[in-house]
Amino acid sequence: MKSQVHRKLKIALFGTAVAAMSIMPMQQADAQEKIRWKVQSTFNTGWPGLGDAIADLAKMLDDATDGRIKLKVYEPGKIVPPLEITPSISRGDLPAAYNYLAYDQGRIPSAVLFSAVPFGMEPQEYAAWWYEGEGSKLATEIYNQRNIQPLLCSTIGPETAGWYRKPIEKLDDLKGLKIRFSGLGGMVLNKIGASATLMAGGEIFAALEKGTLDATEYSMPAIDEILGFYKIAKYNLFPGWHQVSTSTHLLVNLDLWKGLSSSDKALFEMGCTAATMRAMARGEALQGAQIMSFKDKNVNAMKLPDDVLNELKRVTDIVLKEESAKDADFKKVLDSQQAFHAQYQVWKEMGYLPRDFK
Amino acid sequence: MKSQVHRKLKIALFGTAVAAMSIMPMQQADAQEKIRWKVQSTFNTGWPGLGDAIADLAKMLDDATDGRIKLKVYEPGKIVPPLEITPSISRGDLPAAYNYLAYDQGRIPSAVLFSAVPFGMEPQEYAAWWYEGEGSKLATEIYNQRNIQPLLCSTIGPETAGWYRKPIEKLDDLKGLKIRFSGLGGMVLNKIGASATLMAGGEIFAALEKGTLDATEYSMPAIDEILGFYKIAKYNLFPGWHQVSTSTHLLVNLDLWKGLSSSDKALFEMGCTAATMRAMARGEALQGAQIMSFKDKNVNAMKLPDDVLNELKRVTDIVLKEESAKDADFKKVLDSQQAFHAQYQVWKEMGYLPRDFK
Repeated sequence: MKSQVHRKLKIALFGTAVAAMSIMPMQQADAQEKIRWKVQSTFNTGWPGLGDAIADLAKMLDDATDGRIKLKVYEPGKIVPPLEITPSISRGDLPAAYNYLAYDQGRIPSAVLFSAVPFGMEPQEYAAWWYEGEGSKLATEIYNQRNIQPLLCSTIGPETAGWYRKPIEKLDDLKGLKIRFSGLGGMVLNKIGASATLMAGGEIFAALEKGTLDATEYSMPAIDEILGFYKIAKYNLFPGWHQVSTSTHLLVNLDLWKGLSSSDKALFEMGCTAATMRAMARGEALQGAQIMSFKDKNVNAMKLPDDVLNELKRVTDIVLKEESAKDADFKKVLDSQQAFHAQYQVWKEMGYLPRDFK
Repeated sequence: MKSQVHRKLKIALFGTAVAAMSIMPMQQADAQEKIRWKVQSTFNTGWPGLGDAIADLAKMLDDATDGRIKLKVYEPGKIVPPLEITPSISRGDLPAAYNYLAYDQGRIPSAVLFSAVPFGMEPQEYAAWWYEGEGSKLATEIYNQRNIQPLLCSTIGPETAGWYRKPIEKLDDLKGLKIRFSGLGGMVLNKIGASATLMAGGEIFAALEKGTLDATEYSMPAIDEILGFYKIAKYNLFPGWHQVSTSTHLLVNLDLWKGLSSSDKALFEMGCTAATMRAMARGEALQGAQIMSFKDKNVNAMKLPDDVLNELKRVTDIVLKEESAKDADFKKVLDSQQAFHAQYQVWKEMGYLPRDFK
């Protein structure tokens, strides 16, 4: 197994004059070994917070090591299709990727919980659960079984609740809608009578234009702007109930990871932690101005009424319970998140001013 | 000047068998030079989020460089008194410190705005302003004039609004109170008739016990717990209107900073960014459980009524306007924060669920 993985990994390392990483644990003397990895990204590296964290990481590691560590980051689909990223890293065909774990939902049901959960954790809270609660430990357990080491590399704030041709003022307005909606949020919408489908970012605009879709969500306002939804669907709904934060991870082939010196492991961990901070900051910095620009584009920013939110929450709880019953890891991760969330809620309500305090 | 700074810095570097850092910009070949700095901390390094970020930074840099970079962190007051930290770094008596910039308020009025502002920025928001807005740029301008390079190294959530012997149910309950309250928040309380004084963390408990103080604020619940205020003052008030976030910075003597290789600068920047993420996560992770433990200690967690908060906000605006009129840098930094905050508020209200959503 090892030698086969090693051979495949050598193919995926770039550069020829450069010593390939050894799979075996290195001696201290080898700590200065050059690292040249191809890294597949699951999001466009020009998308702020969501995609550019991997470009940040590559630049930070390059700068901090005087070029000793270079990650060559590939745009989505350039090496393998999005859904093939995780198996490729498991097998060692790819050394590393910046991956949205929710795309593993089909083969690893619990994976979606590390990415985006309806009425789940806010970015600060997700980071707290990852670093100080059980997040990193649970993800490591689950992905190590697939021969992969996961590191948190970005967490950003809520998505919008979607772009619609007509305003959403009651639950019935969601029924029957052909809507692009991902992950657990899509399952919630289907349960209340919408027709939710998953579609990659690049395909959504055309589908909206043709009427294949009535509505869509994708990401935060500054990224949705790039995708141009506002040109067709003039109602942008808030808050982002279905995805209170979005987290993306660096996945490294576990044999390769184990072969790193302890100092290089520390460098990657420090780099990903810094990239996460920068992504969170960038996500928070850009959205207010974006929403303020809606007026000039005749876009209406609207909030979902409380009774609609409450009903979405009720259905979300049913979906989460159903998924927990199907998969032990899903239950384990969800239980951990919910226990953390219950404590965090006490702090959030007491310590912070109301969200709309002026 | 340079040679004098160099001589003083050599005294403050620790270790004898180790080459002292050159003040002059280094060649690529010198990039592997060992770094051994004494670093004065302004907070106990055992205090989660507030103090341990500098210990995190030291460990991360040590681990990531196989011991090439070692910061020897000293507990508060062990080398110089807290208020002498910044002048010591300016002069080059100390290479670096983990400092609470509000302690520079006497000599640099704008410094307090980088630490804690009543009704100011939340941690995610402060980080967004620092990294993506003008925060880092303005702090660098102001501290570079004092021969210091500042890096953000921790930002954590709100403090509590203080520990009181009696509940605070109306504004009059604050009048006449002898209360330990720092920075701009203390100025606000004085304006409404309290008697606010500043006092170091270690002295507060005894002052409460003797009745020199009626009440006190200090930090987040998990840190206040260590200081034991709950044994005397049984009413802990929320939310933390006077200090919505608390930020602490690594200060490096500017001549020393300029002498670092570009890769070592990148290492310090990446390390501080990662330390900030970890501090934020730790701060958020610990407070809910702490508040839930109050019941067993007969501590009452209470919220300030809305009308009291609104009045505190009104007086805060007056204090901030007065301070802006006195100092051009104060006005410049405050204007930048308030412009950022006005945009952020649009996003916060729209994108996020209400703080008390269940």
